[in-house]
Amino acid sequence: MNGAESLVKTMLDNGVDTCFANPGTSEMHFVAALDGHPEMRCILCLFEGGTSGAADGYARMSGNVAATLLHLAPGFGNAFSNLHNARKAGSGIMNIVGDHASYHLKYESPLKGDVEGVSSAVSHWTRTCDSARSVARDGAAAIAAARARGGQIATLILPANTAWDAGESAAIHPSLPALHRPSEAQIAAAADVLHQPGACLMIARDALYGPLFQLAGQIAHKTGCRLLADTAAARIERGGGAVQIEQLVYHIDGKLGQLSDARHLVLCGQHRPVAFFAYPGKPSLPEPAQCQVHPLCDPDMDIDWTLRALAKALGVAADEPIHKITLDLPDMPDGAVTLEKAGAAIAALMPENSIIVNESVTAGFALLSATRTARPHDLLITTGGAIGQCLPCATGAAVACPDRKVIALTGDGSAMYTLQSLWTMARERLDVVIVVIANCGYQILHGELLAVGVDSVGHNARRMFDLVDPMLDWVALAKGHGVPGARAASMEEFDSALSTGFETPGPYLIELVIPQE
Amino acid sequence: MNGAESLVKTMLDNGVDTCFANPGTSEMHFVAALDGHPEMRCILCLFEGGTSGAADGYARMSGNVAATLLHLAPGFGNAFSNLHNARKAGSGIMNIVGDHASYHLKYESPLKGDVEGVSSAVSHWTRTCDSARSVARDGAAAIAAARARGGQIATLILPANTAWDAGESAAIHPSLPALHRPSEAQIAAAADVLHQPGACLMIARDALYGPLFQLAGQIAHKTGCRLLADTAAARIERGGGAVQIEQLVYHIDGKLGQLSDARHLVLCGQHRPVAFFAYPGKPSLPEPAQCQVHPLCDPDMDIDWTLRALAKALGVAADEPIHKITLDLPDMPDGAVTLEKAGAAIAALMPENSIIVNESVTAGFALLSATRTARPHDLLITTGGAIGQCLPCATGAAVACPDRKVIALTGDGSAMYTLQSLWTMARERLDVVIVVIANCGYQILHGELLAVGVDSVGHNARRMFDLVDPMLDWVALAKGHGVPGARAASMEEFDSALSTGFETPGPYLIELVIPQE
Repeated sequence: MNGAESLVKTMLDNGVDTCFANPGTSEMHFVAALDGHPEMRCILCLFEGGTSGAADGYARMSGNVAATLLHLAPGFGNAFSNLHNARKAGSGIMNIVGDHASYHLKYESPLKGDVEGVSSAVSHWTRTCDSARSVARDGAAAIAAARARGGQIATLILPANTAWDAGESAAIHPSLPALHRPSEAQIAAAADVLHQPGACLMIARDALYGPLFQLAGQIAHKTGCRLLADTAAARIERGGGAVQIEQLVYHIDGKLGQLSDARHLVLCGQHRPVAFFAYPGKPSLPEPAQCQVHPLCDPDMDIDWTLRALAKALGVAADEPIHKITLDLPDMPDGAVTLEKAGAAIAALMPENSIIVNESVTAGFALLSATRTARPHDLLITTGGAIGQCLPCATGAAVACPDRKVIALTGDGSAMYTLQSLWTMARERLDVVIVVIANCGYQILHGELLAVGVDSVGHNARRMFDLVDPMLDWVALAKGHGVPGARAASMEEFDSALSTGFETPGPYLIELVIPQE
Repeated sequence: MNGAESLVKTMLDNGVDTCFANPGTSEMHFVAALDGHPEMRCILCLFEGGTSGAADGYARMSGNVAATLLHLAPGFGNAFSNLHNARKAGSGIMNIVGDHASYHLKYESPLKGDVEGVSSAVSHWTRTCDSARSVARDGAAAIAAARARGGQIATLILPANTAWDAGESAAIHPSLPALHRPSEAQIAAAADVLHQPGACLMIARDALYGPLFQLAGQIAHKTGCRLLADTAAARIERGGGAVQIEQLVYHIDGKLGQLSDARHLVLCGQHRPVAFFAYPGKPSLPEPAQCQVHPLCDPDMDIDWTLRALAKALGVAADEPIHKITLDLPDMPDGAVTLEKAGAAIAALMPENSIIVNESVTAGFALLSATRTARPHDLLITTGGAIGQCLPCATGAAVACPDRKVIALTGDGSAMYTLQSLWTMARERLDVVIVVIANCGYQILHGELLAVGVDSVGHNARRMFDLVDPMLDWVALAKGHGVPGARAASMEEFDSALSTGFETPGPYLIELVIPQE
């Protein structure tokens, strides 16, 4: 067995069985090894940003480590942006990056580059294999690193000769280091403040879905504290029957308003909240000066233990009730298109157990408010602010959850970054309804220009914000990738296209035309 | 004047007047400053890989520094791959990367990332502005760095507050450090060996076009040595009347054959040639053991001085003749499509002074052989082996040379990496004929799998090599980006589409369907 085979076997033996791939010459032995193991699902993405974004979506929805296969430093560079998002989401990803044979690296070949350098700028863990004999052990260590601290980016660089030389047998990864926990005194202090006026419990990561979300809901009910989530949550349970939680909005002014009455902010699973960007004359921090921040449990600590310890300290009973969202489906809207109506149509029609992946940057708030009371679903958000995440993330979520409908809500500017994911959706017959909000530009930048204090938009700025001249034709772009679609310029057209999308298996794209002022 | 304004003014005062941009919130003051200077040409690319690749093409054809505007670490990551290609081409590029306000960086905001880390992995020069007062000087230093050593990647990181705080007046960049030169003894030794049997002069960079190429041709004529260029040349003059030169092929076996009689390899403007990849049992170096390599002048040294000194040492007269290519236009081919015929059709029809940008990875050799004797033109090649370079590079070349027709030859797999450049071509009315070689896959990988010793292609490998199921529809993809196009499945259709493309101003895409075995 060569090094590449020992790595594929190590991945399978450790439960890593899905690989989002974009291979090149230096990865040919790895590809040959994959060929010998059809139980490894290999999913081709036509651009590495699609690869890393799909791995992120897969990890968020499966809870398992996703593998990627990338080609040298430039391939890693292409994956960088969505690895940044994945890093912020706490997704466990194992990148396998081919490199030149080690003896070839002393020459200035065209593809020679600083793989370790670019990897280290976003990965939590980077290692270059020294020899084929260590590949299995290195691979096991990479999987362990990807699983550690609640999910990390682990990158294993595989020089071509460590893939083709003789390797050793598959390795099982070492047990994970214990997660850090807050002290009993911190738990007691947090339990104490949660009863006080203006107390907020801000949760993230695994606490936003499943049993831990329920537990957090019980803690909120028991103490009367506000339950909060940050703007860029990786995965959050919503819809009828879900725990009631308030999410911070994007803009700092909105955040300041939301937190104006906060006096204690207990953080569980996240860093202290902060403005997305700094603005002249505005604060970086959203809470008022008189609010005390209690960093109880960082994202890489033991969220599960912390919430249970907190519940125990508070005497939360197993049958403690929870404030839940009441199912409330809107009527089907008609007439001229607005974002609110589009959100209502989605809320009315989306099937139970859908997964919404949202990157409709400016449109998101209006679009998502109606879905809050729709049928139960999960919502995935761009965590790192790097656009081009929606379509890849929807791809990976659909691979992880073949029985659930995925709804990708994306602005046109964002979707253009990684539109190649449409092809992967078509090839893999992924059940994704894509709604492209065609507002013809980086609408967020118009607002941001104002927010930083510039009050006029001239020729050069307009040319950089507006995606007009020419207009993008999303139905043609979808067709080019093998995805059927429709253009909707009225609510009737949108409602009808949405019904088609939900009823049709496989991907379906809707270009929703937003009237411009 | 704020820091951003001082930077824009510094760029203009130093002759940097073209900016390929993809801005975000942290760059808003820079955008506002651009607004005040319409003499700065701002070209929006819908993905940063398009930005950096266009900057590369612009720098190759203009000889001037191209600016890019990028958004934090993920934006730089997206630009990474084509910066890698630009680095290998010796293109002078000044990247301006926005970052959070420096006081905001102590918090864990979603977009916080390691901008310096990712930049340092591919840039020759990276600096973060400390204060608005130093922005003009830092900008001037960045432009100097981009111009130094024959062309470098220089990255200036601009925290948002250094853009919006008060800056100083524009700065002129310091004089460039003198380029290193070989010693007189090295010149004399090189002059001596060029007369000997099996002598080759291998040239690159500025020596492959213009007066230096002529001089190299005279040296070859005078000494009888072979004149060689490496596989991945950044820019090379070709067609009737151009200097005769032999270019090394891609595959190591071919390179070994081409150099089997070489006994002296004098390198001017390049590192020693090396196999693109290592293969089991094959050498990394293409020259035979008995061939002596003379590294006369590295790519970052003084190529101009070196060639002139060499010509002087050899007593090359001003009227020394040159072996030139004779113009020889093929007949228009008809019938079934082959790559050779497609190359002949391009050779027959392409206008004088065209610029060919080639990234038809497997198809390139067959396609390009007929154009060697076509009307005079320049050929730009992917220098760093990172695919996704053709469409962006063609964009930048067309911006630099508005009076010349650009011909972008790309495989379908490569074109998918950065297809967003089609939109920029449409918006800027760039005169580009794009030929997508639709061979339905990463055909190079079929060959590479064999080359590394794997002789069967199974399910997983086929799924990763072949762009079928679904087929891409390039005419639809072009239409989606606002670019007209046609599909050609016979030579008659191709000839007709090519004529339309050459006669029509603005971009035009041809999907050339290659029959599959």
